Amino acid sequence: MSGQSDNGGSGGGGFRSHRDTAQVDMPMAPPRRPGAGVAPAAPSVPVPALTGPVPLPADGRSDASPLVRTVERHLDEILAAVPQPDAIELAVLDAQGLLCAEDVVSQRALPAFDQAALDGYAARADDVAAATVAQPVELAVVGESVAGASAPSSIGPGLALKVAAGAMLPSGADVVVPGVWTDQGTVRVAVQAGPPAGSYVRRTGDDVAPGDPAVHVGTPIGPAQISLLAAVGRDRVLVRPRPRVVVLSAGTELVDVSATPSPGQVVDVNSYALAAAARDAGADAYRWGILPGDPRRLTEVLESQLLRSDLLLISGTFASGGFDMVQEALAGLGGMRFRQVAMHPGPAQGFGRLGRDEVPVICVPGEPVAALVAFEVFVRPAIRLMLGKRQLFRRTVQAIAGQPLLSPLGYRQYLHGTVMRHPDGGYVVEPVGEATDALLARMARANCLIVIDEDVTEVAAGGLITVMPLLLGG
Amino acid sequence: MSGQSDNGGSGGGGFRSHRDTAQVDMPMAPPRRPGAGVAPAAPSVPVPALTGPVPLPADGRSDASPLVRTVERHLDEILAAVPQPDAIELAVLDAQGLLCAEDVVSQRALPAFDQAALDGYAARADDVAAATVAQPVELAVVGESVAGASAPSSIGPGLALKVAAGAMLPSGADVVVPGVWTDQGTVRVAVQAGPPAGSYVRRTGDDVAPGDPAVHVGTPIGPAQISLLAAVGRDRVLVRPRPRVVVLSAGTELVDVSATPSPGQVVDVNSYALAAAARDAGADAYRWGILPGDPRRLTEVLESQLLRSDLLLISGTFASGGFDMVQEALAGLGGMRFRQVAMHPGPAQGFGRLGRDEVPVICVPGEPVAALVAFEVFVRPAIRLMLGKRQLFRRTVQAIAGQPLLSPLGYRQYLHGTVMRHPDGGYVVEPVGEATDALLARMARANCLIVIDEDVTEVAAGGLITVMPLLLGG
Repeated sequence: MSGQSDNGGSGGGGFRSHRDTAQVDMPMAPPRRPGAGVAPAAPSVPVPALTGPVPLPADGRSDASPLVRTVERHLDEILAAVPQPDAIELAVLDAQGLLCAEDVVSQRALPAFDQAALDGYAARADDVAAATVAQPVELAVVGESVAGASAPSSIGPGLALKVAAGAMLPSGADVVVPGVWTDQGTVRVAVQAGPPAGSYVRRTGDDVAPGDPAVHVGTPIGPAQISLLAAVGRDRVLVRPRPRVVVLSAGTELVDVSATPSPGQVVDVNSYALAAAARDAGADAYRWGILPGDPRRLTEVLESQLLRSDLLLISGTFASGGFDMVQEALAGLGGMRFRQVAMHPGPAQGFGRLGRDEVPVICVPGEPVAALVAFEVFVRPAIRLMLGKRQLFRRTVQAIAGQPLLSPLGYRQYLHGTVMRHPDGGYVVEPVGEATDALLARMARANCLIVIDEDVTEVAAGGLITVMPLLLGG
Repeated sequence: MSGQSDNGGSGGGGFRSHRDTAQVDMPMAPPRRPGAGVAPAAPSVPVPALTGPVPLPADGRSDASPLVRTVERHLDEILAAVPQPDAIELAVLDAQGLLCAEDVVSQRALPAFDQAALDGYAARADDVAAATVAQPVELAVVGESVAGASAPSSIGPGLALKVAAGAMLPSGADVVVPGVWTDQGTVRVAVQAGPPAGSYVRRTGDDVAPGDPAVHVGTPIGPAQISLLAAVGRDRVLVRPRPRVVVLSAGTELVDVSATPSPGQVVDVNSYALAAAARDAGADAYRWGILPGDPRRLTEVLESQLLRSDLLLISGTFASGGFDMVQEALAGLGGMRFRQVAMHPGPAQGFGRLGRDEVPVICVPGEPVAALVAFEVFVRPAIRLMLGKRQLFRRTVQAIAGQPLLSPLGYRQYLHGTVMRHPDGGYVVEPVGEATDALLARMARANCLIVIDEDVTEVAAGGLITVMPLLLGG
């Protein structure tokens, strides 16, 4: 049980309490076979051929490997190390979707002057109090005021000023009689009902008084906040910026999408897919593409990208035991650790802080399905943390499994699925396709990830299971 | 009842069936007072002073005004007239969030070659069928193959090739024995279990066969679709483009946010807020700002913006009876209608199709709160329709009213509120602030619109009410 401290239930961190997921309580991973860290194996559970982590032969020994760590622990390491980019001032329209990084205090009153709340007649409440349809009160109309007219005016007893919504209230008036309560006269007006004093008048500062806080630190800036910021005279605002995420692919087998792959070669899909995912999570994402094969050039690229990034995201087939050229180049730039994480697909994960500025570098598996799963699990929460979002994790729902699901003991399994509303309420989920192998066409049909906890080996049809809908945006 | 055909329950259109809202069934608006179209009035319901549409005096007559139309009818007119912008080809990363406008058929097989699904040993299933931990089968290792290696190889009986995940399967092999089921030997390998033929092998075309559809018309393009598009060799894809929406403000009282307003003047907040809202809805939004006061220059601006827009969005205080300079300029460019819509806030709405290309022009009220409500009700669905989205409308939920709510008969009322999850399940909603008058600071604290139907005048505390959460993005 040498791996207990690494895999145990105490391995969580400070971010656990924010997780709006059903898998907050991390069960202790079961013991594993010693030395099996590079390609970890889950004992004893029969899984269908072609799926998932490899079951050990039935009588295989099993002890925990110190090289395998839990999903929670790897995530906690990343979240604890992710920096908070400095706040920047942006034009309000560019601030949309970001979090306000200052307490905006209004220097102005809103409204800036007493004004009519609707079209009608500014009058004195006492004059019209007794008005009825049968016995209207007649007032002399002294003129008309529209929104934007700056000339102050005043009225005395028995007088009215025709006003449009937003027009300044003349001094002496304390009520606006709605036009539809009158005969809409222009020289004299017959008022058929008298509202109480103050009715249909917006007073100076009713909305915001000078010194009032308008938008607080941490408020997400949307159209309503932009409206308020402009109203108090702000065309710029301090915000938490979008983190700059540079996406790179590693692998000698990779060719760019524009090339025709030779036998054994595969198209670099990850730099596209991960850049899209990073942008969707709120980052400014830059797709660098395939890392060069020349070691000196490789290090140059990594160094220059570290200078312009808040986060480097690299996909590739890295082994925690192995040591390839990219791993070597990363190691030369700082402390980079590759580890096996008890998850499927894609247990091979890496994290480090490299370069002068200790920029976080997350390495995810090269297999495209595993790369996007790792993005969801580790990278999206990190980007949202850098954005200052309180809700780092996607919401999860409990859904009824439409068919039996198997999962290897000790691994958190993420299966792509389709989740639908059940006619009787709640949700039903089906995995896409028959097997759990990484297939792109299948993934593209999914609308959720099914999350099966480490200590669950089998979910019966009709059983409840945690589902993470993969909505775009938001 | 002259307004019945305009207000009646039959006034809905083809888009009604798509509405995922609780207010699909449009109740017939009640009769109204004739001639009250400019500032419509709702009879008989007491509403607090300072709120909402103006109640008529208690004994006021009431007949329907032909100038007042239902929300549904105004929306239907807009949706029926909105054009579908032509599909355009974009780089896959720029296609993110848009709908695919072609059936992408793969010319390639994915995987392009038989390959190992994990690290292990490619072998012949027959050779290893009898292997157990107690009685391993020994094979001679003929070499090692990694992902990206192009040299084809083959194995015969009694032989194995060490393979990394993604490496080409040598001819003669029909299984990959997971490395952890072996002693990981490099010259000879002891296999402790034999999986069935085909295990841990990805066959050519398993994912996508040549001629298979990869991404269908109408599919939203997210990271998974981008992954698949790249994999089948597509770096560009035909999509429904973002509509270009130009946002303009009209009003002689308006000054830009950078100016200090004189008495009677107000800051133009709508060009900012509506541009932000349009962008959030998925449009490419351009903020033009405040329309000029000179009639010739005004017409020039409108004409030039019509040429570059898929939709013009203008906020201002327009009356269906009145006729100001902007209304006159718009009328000179085509058929523009200003109407009273039975909603609160902001009944004054306009729509037309102007210029040579009959570009849709939507006019919304100048009051900022009413402008954003009108955006939600009329403009956001129009933008989503242009994007090709199937779901035009925000999802609504039923929530328990935390306090009594009053609403004028015959008007659909939209109140800003805060909706929260109830500890016992479901939702609870409270309006922000005490009154329904348009206040920006209040609106900025809201996270939803409370929608009260035309035929509802009172909602008791604890009653169920329709709520539209205003989530950003998505």
